[in-house]
Amino acid sequence: MKSEKISELTTNRLSVYLRCLNTLSAAGIKSVSSQSLAEQFNLNSAQIRKDLGYFGEFGVRGVGYYVEDLREHITKILGLDKPHRVGIVGAGRLGTALANYKGFSRSNFSVVALFDNDEAKIGRRIGEDKILIRDVKKMPRLVSDEAIDVMVIAVPARVAQKVLNQIMSAGIKAVLNFAPASLHARLDVKVKTVDLTTSLESLSYFLARPQASAVTNPRRKRQTEEGGAVARP
Amino acid sequence: MKSEKISELTTNRLSVYLRCLNTLSAAGIKSVSSQSLAEQFNLNSAQIRKDLGYFGEFGVRGVGYYVEDLREHITKILGLDKPHRVGIVGAGRLGTALANYKGFSRSNFSVVALFDNDEAKIGRRIGEDKILIRDVKKMPRLVSDEAIDVMVIAVPARVAQKVLNQIMSAGIKAVLNFAPASLHARLDVKVKTVDLTTSLESLSYFLARPQASAVTNPRRKRQTEEGGAVARP
Repeated sequence: MKSEKISELTTNRLSVYLRCLNTLSAAGIKSVSSQSLAEQFNLNSAQIRKDLGYFGEFGVRGVGYYVEDLREHITKILGLDKPHRVGIVGAGRLGTALANYKGFSRSNFSVVALFDNDEAKIGRRIGEDKILIRDVKKMPRLVSDEAIDVMVIAVPARVAQKVLNQIMSAGIKAVLNFAPASLHARLDVKVKTVDLTTSLESLSYFLARPQASAVTNPRRKRQTEEGGAVARP
Repeated sequence: MKSEKISELTTNRLSVYLRCLNTLSAAGIKSVSSQSLAEQFNLNSAQIRKDLGYFGEFGVRGVGYYVEDLREHITKILGLDKPHRVGIVGAGRLGTALANYKGFSRSNFSVVALFDNDEAKIGRRIGEDKILIRDVKKMPRLVSDEAIDVMVIAVPARVAQKVLNQIMSAGIKAVLNFAPASLHARLDVKVKTVDLTTSLESLSYFLARPQASAVTNPRRKRQTEEGGAVARP
């Protein structure tokens, strides 16, 4: 595997391919060609072959891909064959909504702890799974006791860097950040930011200049959805 | 203005600059150089000058940028000087959490309607602002009556395309999609997807191969946060 050449755009696409394969699998489809996969899900067949080519030879001549085999391969490539245990820092509206979010479990993530610094919240339990809100000061011990490997930041922007520092000190290497803040992370820590404000403001820009989107993609006859891409300079 | 050259990455960065300027303004700072702006907020000063250069000459020799002036300019460029009225389709957990999300109003967006097809939910009111849940069948009329210009999709993936088609039929040109689905939109409609699953799976890939992130950015000594970038092939 040429893992040193794999960009985040490639792994993002693998994630999309996996969802398409899940849909095919649920419909009882056994095999699919890259062309058919591309047509059904609005993807690019050459890109599919290139992306998968980084990880091995999965296609079978005259058949295409066996759906279950390819699902299993991509699941392993993305590390989704192993369960991930998630902590959420910030038991406000967003944090509690995320604690109840069903999408985590689809990707083998389970939320095991919520953290807050508000005495009024600590000790309460949230949602169907009755997740306990813990004192953020106890994070380092709980990360170890609960084998947490992913942390979610759902706190206001002004305290997000402080919280990230606490998270990094607790030994966490993967962070999903919802705070609209420019955060500094160590090189061995991966921070993914989901930035609703930037997505909204990009829509506002489009509404102010409706021609902008069409002109930036002159060769695309039909627009496919665009990701909530937020590249920080 | 060379609007035909403006990429979404540029508008995303303008959104980040605006938030930095808001912070400086709140701290009473009157002017800032691109170097100082870059150092304080972990940005790239050449990139700042290039991005702003698309829209005019905002810098003043020997001063840098006047904070209030530049805030006003970027606000206008992003179309944030005009209010946007938002409808949310899907009054489930995510939809109701979003209806209460304070971040909308910071960007001049206000949520004015929730839509659902569940008779048990229609007619109820949600959150502090008592937003009424309406029948999704009445969307076209309400879009017109309430002057809604942005719609949020917060429904399950399997019905997201059908909902997007309804939204486009109602004349909406800007959509924020939270459903993990590949959606087809007309060229004159902008769909931004916030894809939590892809963000999670990208973190999982990193945990499975911790060296991957470091190697893809060999020249960066210190990693800055990465956006929840989801490029669809």
